[in-house]
Amino acid sequence: MRSGLICILALLMAPPAAWADGDAERGQSMSALCSACHGPDGISVNPLWPSLAGQQELYLAKAIRDYRDGVRVDVSMQPFVAELTEQEVEDLAAYYASLPLRP
Amino acid sequence: MRSGLICILALLMAPPAAWADGDAERGQSMSALCSACHGPDGISVNPLWPSLAGQQELYLAKAIRDYRDGVRVDVSMQPFVAELTEQEVEDLAAYYASLPLRP
Repeated sequence: MRSGLICILALLMAPPAAWADGDAERGQSMSALCSACHGPDGISVNPLWPSLAGQQELYLAKAIRDYRDGVRVDVSMQPFVAELTEQEVEDLAAYYASLPLRP
Repeated sequence: MRSGLICILALLMAPPAAWADGDAERGQSMSALCSACHGPDGISVNPLWPSLAGQQELYLAKAIRDYRDGVRVDVSMQPFVAELTEQEVEDLAAYYASLPLRP
């Protein structure tokens, strides 16, 4: 039972095969619109919106894709990400993942 | 144009009328299962999963509710939150929001 649980946890914690390949500098150059809500330093100023600074890069990329592709539905987010290419998604994710949690 | 933009930003940044009323201590007492994936200090050990430490409390509560209610679909998350009451959602959100970003 215990070893089974450890196996499951190990599988859950294994990093995925595909790694993000974003460019944080390019991401920063596209981040002006994002910063209006998520904060210029990636720390949200509204309690309903997530802070992005220091978040996991692959998680951020997945979140942006999910909003872009309608998997996650949010009327505030969708217009800002609707036209993003895969590279732009990864660049933005790389930028916010690179920001320190406490600037 | 500029004043219109300021008005829109002010509206976007206004906190919502309903504030979370979670108890971080109660949330901590329920967090053992969460910590297996989101980290004992709320910092995720897997690049695909979000860190929760220091995240906005109302955002966390919304995210948990969305998983619980099927608005966000994730096979890993749903079983852990399916039976949570409103109070338990708010307690967990209060706990993770209370964790320092850099322990």
